Amino acid sequence: MNAQTKFEGLEVGFDVPALPGMNEADIQTPSLVLDLDALERNIKKMGDYAKAHGMRHRVHGKMHKSVDVAKLQVELGGACGVCCQKVSEAEVFARGGIQDVLVSNQVRDPAKIDRLARLPKLGARTICCVDDIANVADLSAAAQRHGTEIECLVEIDCGAGRCGVTTTSAVVDIAKAIDGAEGLKFSGIQAYQGAMQHMDSYEDRKAKIDVAVAMVKDAVEALKSDGIECDIVGGGGTGSYYFESNSGVFNELQCGSYAFMDADYGRILDQDGKRIDQGEWENAFFILTSVMSHAKADKAIVDAGLKAQSVDSGLPVIFGRTDVEYVKCSDEHGVVSDLDGTLKVNDKLKLVPGHCDPTANVHDWYVGVRGGVVETLWPVSARGKAY
Amino acid sequence: MNAQTKFEGLEVGFDVPALPGMNEADIQTPSLVLDLDALERNIKKMGDYAKAHGMRHRVHGKMHKSVDVAKLQVELGGACGVCCQKVSEAEVFARGGIQDVLVSNQVRDPAKIDRLARLPKLGARTICCVDDIANVADLSAAAQRHGTEIECLVEIDCGAGRCGVTTTSAVVDIAKAIDGAEGLKFSGIQAYQGAMQHMDSYEDRKAKIDVAVAMVKDAVEALKSDGIECDIVGGGGTGSYYFESNSGVFNELQCGSYAFMDADYGRILDQDGKRIDQGEWENAFFILTSVMSHAKADKAIVDAGLKAQSVDSGLPVIFGRTDVEYVKCSDEHGVVSDLDGTLKVNDKLKLVPGHCDPTANVHDWYVGVRGGVVETLWPVSARGKAY
Repeated sequence: MNAQTKFEGLEVGFDVPALPGMNEADIQTPSLVLDLDALERNIKKMGDYAKAHGMRHRVHGKMHKSVDVAKLQVELGGACGVCCQKVSEAEVFARGGIQDVLVSNQVRDPAKIDRLARLPKLGARTICCVDDIANVADLSAAAQRHGTEIECLVEIDCGAGRCGVTTTSAVVDIAKAIDGAEGLKFSGIQAYQGAMQHMDSYEDRKAKIDVAVAMVKDAVEALKSDGIECDIVGGGGTGSYYFESNSGVFNELQCGSYAFMDADYGRILDQDGKRIDQGEWENAFFILTSVMSHAKADKAIVDAGLKAQSVDSGLPVIFGRTDVEYVKCSDEHGVVSDLDGTLKVNDKLKLVPGHCDPTANVHDWYVGVRGGVVETLWPVSARGKAY
Repeated sequence: MNAQTKFEGLEVGFDVPALPGMNEADIQTPSLVLDLDALERNIKKMGDYAKAHGMRHRVHGKMHKSVDVAKLQVELGGACGVCCQKVSEAEVFARGGIQDVLVSNQVRDPAKIDRLARLPKLGARTICCVDDIANVADLSAAAQRHGTEIECLVEIDCGAGRCGVTTTSAVVDIAKAIDGAEGLKFSGIQAYQGAMQHMDSYEDRKAKIDVAVAMVKDAVEALKSDGIECDIVGGGGTGSYYFESNSGVFNELQCGSYAFMDADYGRILDQDGKRIDQGEWENAFFILTSVMSHAKADKAIVDAGLKAQSVDSGLPVIFGRTDVEYVKCSDEHGVVSDLDGTLKVNDKLKLVPGHCDPTANVHDWYVGVRGGVVETLWPVSARGKAY
């Protein structure tokens, strides 16, 4: 099925924001644009890094929610599979052909457990996290009911302050329960330090991961002394993957944002004090927006507001421009300070959103662009799959 | 088509978060729940108010993006039609059977202007706003090309600081240009003071609207002295409708949030210093969320994070509970302070989101509940229609 067939009969604007072959300038706004060259370079670079460090890379699909991006990460970046945060996302990835899917989260609701237990029937290795021994019996019953196997990781809260246990004894108790449960397989440890990923200073981030590594090592050794091996010791994000890779205990990375980059991640500093969006990773993910009013001389009003992005991690940054600044965001509008009055109605700007994950989740389509021309449209396949 | 037919073959969880007839307790989370009784009371109350004050009510569809809610507002609340902020939303409402649609925003992109000019062919009276005389020729050419009529309002910026002109002379100049353009009809004034709607104090809000009313009166009188009548003088929101209704110059209200309520609007005070969610309007709109981890004694982790809501206007409030508090929001999780440890895994909470509009825009479905039972599912029909 080529692009022409795929979009035949659809109308630009109503159904899709663009069509393959169209010039970038004709994309309807606001919409998500991927710079395919930059995206591929980011994916290749992280894949090469993981391989060189003997790490598997289970890419975080909750960031982009796209089967197409995940497949590119498998094919081009050598990813072993995906992790995601919801059973509904896992269903989308498994139905889309991803063969190794971790729900890096707790699954407690009976209906969700039942759906999780059916995932292996779609051909996907199915893994989830556990932080409560009471969950084991429910998972086991569901797996037996469907004649499938659910692999389980014990989740350690190594600083994020959300799900996860905080003691080695709890890890061992839950691991043993999983190990002894029909239909389940104990497969290792989940330990993602989410809270430190966005700390600006490399040293501050390192200090937090040192604590996490110590917790994980202690747990892995305690399990080993009980004769329980960890196939997976997973964690690591865009702000920390080099620490986990050199820890001697983690063997799977779970990076997401490196592929797209965003304004909030871009601000964090590498070991040399350089922003990570100035060399380590490229901005590949943009909101294309248009000026729709310039009734005041010093302000341009653009068409990307809160319905086109999430501002939880700050306002978007205008890519490649220092003369104009996105200063305010309301439901439907962005206010761009344009003191010199350089912008005109219908001028287009590329915004680097503050936070890529919840911004992608607002849109239905990624418009893939190469060399100024629309090459492809990819659905945000798991958009809205929160339940 | 009854509910059973409508949802036949769909699977709860994968396709839809609930099915009609199901108990509220079995709805998959996180998802949007509408209390249909409260919604209907809000809609009826505002409809009665508008009628009693001789105002038309053009309900703001950009808040809910739902054809079903808009139809309820027409049938039960006597609404004259909808306003919305995007041509793509207008297309959804017109295709859904709403016969009077105002895009209360600027339409400048050539493709969007062309789509707007085709809207009357769907049977809808089509109105848009203009704040730049240069827009008139483009709108006129498109209307003539399609043999349709676009009605135009001149937008006054009466304090929101976004689109709109700020002088009476600009209003008159643009109105005359519209009046003389083939395919266009000058229909009045758009003057929504968006910036004051969320000010807590009734007196502060009144002071802002007094300024707006003075601007609008001046413009309407200047037009009249030039022989130009305004069919529509539109504006007013949930935080101001009583001011516009008693202004002697506005004749159409454009309220949106009154129907659902949210935490940020709920905090503003009426004339007696009472919160508007304590009598004036009922909370009808909730995010249903489940506890998914309680690995720490004092914290429950719930499944509604940034992918289930927008936190631009603050964190959600837990409805009907003072013993627990939603204190932190990350991509996939909410942290609920539970100092007494009263919550258990799989307990459900109803969150009143900080801001209803961008929260609705994240979800695919409204689950309509009455008396603890799911009565209907309504799609968020114009979800994601930002371009």
